[in-house]
Amino acid sequence: MSRDPRHDILFEPVRIGPVTAPNRFYQVPHCTGMGWLRPRTLAAMRGVKAEGGWGVVCTEYTSIHPSSDDLPHPSASLWDDSDVRAHALMTDAVHEHGALAGVELWYGGARTANMMTRLPSMDVQSAPNLAGHPYQTRAMDKADIRTFRHWHRRAALRAREAGFDIVYVYATHGYLVSNFLNPRINTRGDEYGGSLENRVRLVRELIEETKEAVGDRCAVAVRFSADEVAGEDGTPIWGERREMFAMLADLPDLWDINIADYSLEMGVSRFVKEAALEPYMAWVKSVTSKPVVTVGRFTSPDTMVGQIRRGITDFIGAARPSIADPFLPRKIEEGRLSAIRECIGCNICYSGDSLGVPIRCTQNPTMGEEWRRGWHPEVIPARTSEARVLIVGAGPAGLEAARALGARGYEVMLAEATRDLGGRVTREAALPGMREYIRVRDYREQQLIDMPNVGIFRESRLTVQDVQDVGADHVAIATGARWRPERFDEQVYLPIATGEAVARVLTPDDIMEGRLPEGPTLVFDGDGYYMGGVIAERLRAEGLEVTLCTPDDSVSRWTVNTAERWRVRNHLMRLGVGIETAQSLAGFDGREARLECVYSGREKIIPAVNVVMVTARRPEDALYQALLAEAGADGLPFTLARIGDCEAPAIIAAAVHAGHRYARELDAVLDIDLPLRHDRIDVGAEATAPGLWTRGAAE
Amino acid sequence: MSRDPRHDILFEPVRIGPVTAPNRFYQVPHCTGMGWLRPRTLAAMRGVKAEGGWGVVCTEYTSIHPSSDDLPHPSASLWDDSDVRAHALMTDAVHEHGALAGVELWYGGARTANMMTRLPSMDVQSAPNLAGHPYQTRAMDKADIRTFRHWHRRAALRAREAGFDIVYVYATHGYLVSNFLNPRINTRGDEYGGSLENRVRLVRELIEETKEAVGDRCAVAVRFSADEVAGEDGTPIWGERREMFAMLADLPDLWDINIADYSLEMGVSRFVKEAALEPYMAWVKSVTSKPVVTVGRFTSPDTMVGQIRRGITDFIGAARPSIADPFLPRKIEEGRLSAIRECIGCNICYSGDSLGVPIRCTQNPTMGEEWRRGWHPEVIPARTSEARVLIVGAGPAGLEAARALGARGYEVMLAEATRDLGGRVTREAALPGMREYIRVRDYREQQLIDMPNVGIFRESRLTVQDVQDVGADHVAIATGARWRPERFDEQVYLPIATGEAVARVLTPDDIMEGRLPEGPTLVFDGDGYYMGGVIAERLRAEGLEVTLCTPDDSVSRWTVNTAERWRVRNHLMRLGVGIETAQSLAGFDGREARLECVYSGREKIIPAVNVVMVTARRPEDALYQALLAEAGADGLPFTLARIGDCEAPAIIAAAVHAGHRYARELDAVLDIDLPLRHDRIDVGAEATAPGLWTRGAAE
Repeated sequence: MSRDPRHDILFEPVRIGPVTAPNRFYQVPHCTGMGWLRPRTLAAMRGVKAEGGWGVVCTEYTSIHPSSDDLPHPSASLWDDSDVRAHALMTDAVHEHGALAGVELWYGGARTANMMTRLPSMDVQSAPNLAGHPYQTRAMDKADIRTFRHWHRRAALRAREAGFDIVYVYATHGYLVSNFLNPRINTRGDEYGGSLENRVRLVRELIEETKEAVGDRCAVAVRFSADEVAGEDGTPIWGERREMFAMLADLPDLWDINIADYSLEMGVSRFVKEAALEPYMAWVKSVTSKPVVTVGRFTSPDTMVGQIRRGITDFIGAARPSIADPFLPRKIEEGRLSAIRECIGCNICYSGDSLGVPIRCTQNPTMGEEWRRGWHPEVIPARTSEARVLIVGAGPAGLEAARALGARGYEVMLAEATRDLGGRVTREAALPGMREYIRVRDYREQQLIDMPNVGIFRESRLTVQDVQDVGADHVAIATGARWRPERFDEQVYLPIATGEAVARVLTPDDIMEGRLPEGPTLVFDGDGYYMGGVIAERLRAEGLEVTLCTPDDSVSRWTVNTAERWRVRNHLMRLGVGIETAQSLAGFDGREARLECVYSGREKIIPAVNVVMVTARRPEDALYQALLAEAGADGLPFTLARIGDCEAPAIIAAAVHAGHRYARELDAVLDIDLPLRHDRIDVGAEATAPGLWTRGAAE
Repeated sequence: MSRDPRHDILFEPVRIGPVTAPNRFYQVPHCTGMGWLRPRTLAAMRGVKAEGGWGVVCTEYTSIHPSSDDLPHPSASLWDDSDVRAHALMTDAVHEHGALAGVELWYGGARTANMMTRLPSMDVQSAPNLAGHPYQTRAMDKADIRTFRHWHRRAALRAREAGFDIVYVYATHGYLVSNFLNPRINTRGDEYGGSLENRVRLVRELIEETKEAVGDRCAVAVRFSADEVAGEDGTPIWGERREMFAMLADLPDLWDINIADYSLEMGVSRFVKEAALEPYMAWVKSVTSKPVVTVGRFTSPDTMVGQIRRGITDFIGAARPSIADPFLPRKIEEGRLSAIRECIGCNICYSGDSLGVPIRCTQNPTMGEEWRRGWHPEVIPARTSEARVLIVGAGPAGLEAARALGARGYEVMLAEATRDLGGRVTREAALPGMREYIRVRDYREQQLIDMPNVGIFRESRLTVQDVQDVGADHVAIATGARWRPERFDEQVYLPIATGEAVARVLTPDDIMEGRLPEGPTLVFDGDGYYMGGVIAERLRAEGLEVTLCTPDDSVSRWTVNTAERWRVRNHLMRLGVGIETAQSLAGFDGREARLECVYSGREKIIPAVNVVMVTARRPEDALYQALLAEAGADGLPFTLARIGDCEAPAIIAAAVHAGHRYARELDAVLDIDLPLRHDRIDVGAEATAPGLWTRGAAE
């Protein structure tokens, strides 16, 4: 196949100061939970993006000095020569594929507590830490500003030494430099505060000093917000932003534009759709002659072309779409549009940085595994045997296992009990706001169409005998899990009703299968991720009186990691869902729910004629266990595995990963004691870790 | 000086299987926020403890396999040869001082989500992750148990190879092995579950297999809980624990005993005092002939001796006291009891592991800085000039700076405006539950008594002229901070009252200075650490009707990191303090407080005639700024610095650290661009980091 001529414009080279991007695909800086902690993991991951056709590949926010230390969130750093060596791994990997490498120089200010380095954080004013840690900043005096500029320049020089082509001045996201721009915050009396001219001074100096230092070889970009404060979604409040922008418009070589509301800029698909930043970008390109990049979770090439043709942006900026599919540009170039793995907007990627663990992706199981497991998103080793594989269950784990094994060339039979593929993905995608999750199924279903070696058998609920009759060499059980009606007290599962009330205790599976209750309903969320809130919304949409009750202090607690927690509760309250936090569910009699404060034990009665329990899931592993029980002294005539929720119920990303891992590891010689490389300090040994696949067990 | 003969018993060697501890001081395994991520930092820190006289020094919880991965909490690991090399750094450092090195082999089960390695976690049953992440465990089958035992044995062999002398079977704290023991959880039908005999089987096998594998050279210890479930503080509920213990009593070489309630075992001093575990230990030593260690935040040698003489324990176990004073044993041995830096029980140490950052300590500013800043807790470089130093303010920063500079031999003048030393420490220690915080002052005041080169000037509030008249070569301003009466909206400080109501807006400083209000009072906690709760308790003790209001979802949010959040809210509710969460304070008119839901914006009125604002602090830096303003073209005739809260208000640990850093760095040639070593992966360079003090600026 070859590229649709309508998409040609996406592949034009674009000059950025002294360098030229080979096309318009621009991976903007995005965090990964790797940073300076995991340089080899990071370099391999960024290199794969360049290989996949991204013309510019940036690394994540890069601290210029130990007094900007974001741990436990893993930023990158440019503090010393070891950082230069670490980044050179990444720039080499990016350059190998003809792409440009960018770096975003970063100073956190009141957003960092410097809990590793224990240096005071500096900002425009003395202010509490904005991540909630008990460390205030020091207000910068003029000597501090001079020192800061010195650090910035020094980091830029190191960036050039490390091989970067684009160096950022990072003037947004509430970090130090953006606070200098902010008229509410920056009321300093000196030449760096007060008037617009004064507030812009620092950014101007940083641009000029960075150009002076590295502009011979590197482009200088500025990351900047197009609006002044967060307003209603889609309604920018520009304030003096245009004027401010105009003052700097032609100073840098590139503008990377985003918006004031981070939870909209990178909003989850539940609340924010593709190209959501367009209303904010209206004026930007009319004020500058320099190239502009912005984002919008773009996965459709037609949308991308539209953005460029209508003069919204010059580059198609992306973080999440490049994570879900590092080969998105290449696939457009080759006209293989149906092969694009579209981002579902779940923000699991972001949870890596939130939690201080390496990035993962629901759609792309190889994300973060490029170095440590040697996984490539588009290349997978060919089969090493003529083995036939039976996969039972076509949810996210089974579908991905079938797809990846199919790509390896194995003969695969995929048996699904129902008419539809997708399992939980199909069910959950029908819930309010969750539509884009269906892409997890769609991508895989689409891929399977072209694989003659994969047979799909719908409405095929297999028995033990059926499985045995298939005569496969390998059997993977991927039959998923179902929500339990009990509460889990951290040790055991407890029923919450007896007698007739039992029938009024429902689970998310009931709701997803259309068994909708009537009358006042309590949704008890002991799970804490998205399901409790989504189920409450689903029932509220039916007009029910709904109370969401959780033993946690927060509604949908874990969604803080995907940057949506505030939106979830705000949304539910707008819909009129009642909220009860820090309350456990002690009992339910069909008329009332008895809540118990998790701190005081005090009881509270809530009228409710139904309860939906969102607590834990029971693996649907009966077939697996029954097959295991069939094994005689010689074992089974096939290898048997369970994968995904049927092994250990978890997020969809884990199921896809498990399916992929199963496919990768089939017929492979894997060290069960150390199944992955460890990107860590190795004292007293060679700098690079030993090979992965050659090591035997330790004893 | 020499040791008090009453303390001789503490210095008796004790045999532990094949090894012998040189004395009874035993640093039990404790987390540090270092683990496998920071091996050099860790080794240096543990080595200092051995140097300080701890006869046994253990490392932290050590994962035996990638399927037990606690990130973002940094555990240690024994997965491969690089781990062996990393641990050898630590065991060498410990052995150098004649101590034994211990390692706690650990498998997290339902407590770990394996977010780095992405392997399913295994436990007795399929259960939700107990840290609240959306990843359930896989229920272990018998093959899994065999594999687990293989991993455990393999890790024990690696531990021996790394030079450890004591290897733990870790059977408590709700991790995998303890769940096998638990009668509620472990209802398996096979020989590993159900009956007591069956539930104990795994621990028995692990002990036997570990002894078989490494018992020739290593002692085998078991960490075990003396009670079955958490009851009221001080009231053990033993259940079948005695019986269980008796079945294993003489199998290992050592018992490390703790209790079921972690928040009591390592409770903050606000709620738990020295030797709190004694009621739980009553029967333990009567059942086993093997040596026993337990903890109790012991800092008094007389208490320690009493514990041994009364047969409670054989070893004085310690985590926190060894952090606050690594030289505690040595000081007892040398009869220098007044030199002991007693733990204050604030649990800031624990926040390192909670947050995934390296450990810190309020009392011991060198904790965690041994390798990266080259700081030793008891040795500090002698002065390199005849300079005279003036320190203004005798709070935690000023006191520590004076003490450390005094120890360096400088002539120091410490001027304090009030009659009392200690600053905020003295004030806060008078609040309910906070008494032990006074140790921060007491240790330093005690040390200063013996320093003829340090002059203390009380009731000496200095003016600019006074400072100039002193004629010091160096001046450090450590004048602290005061709480602000405003609310901080993440950008600016906003007053919440006008007119006469302004006088009814108080701060913690008012309360600490005895300006107690009357009538219904709202405490508005925008700070989120301990102060809001403590102030509410203080007012409640006066009989006031008190409501604690916070914009956070949780009461005293940040205390989750110090393992006290549940206790704080439970305690306040028991005292009858009203709780309002997720509410911001929009206004106050002297009769009512107007709250605003942070999610919905809905208003709520609370009757209150006073408001205490616990939000942010204003540095008391007027003297610093006035002195700076005096600087002419040639600058000041002395170096000028501000340290502690007067530079950047933060926790007490930060102030002590800042004072210490000031003292260390005086007259030192420090690279401002890189003031500390970075324990990180250095690709393509030598394995150890370059020297710290020899490097110049980068350009």
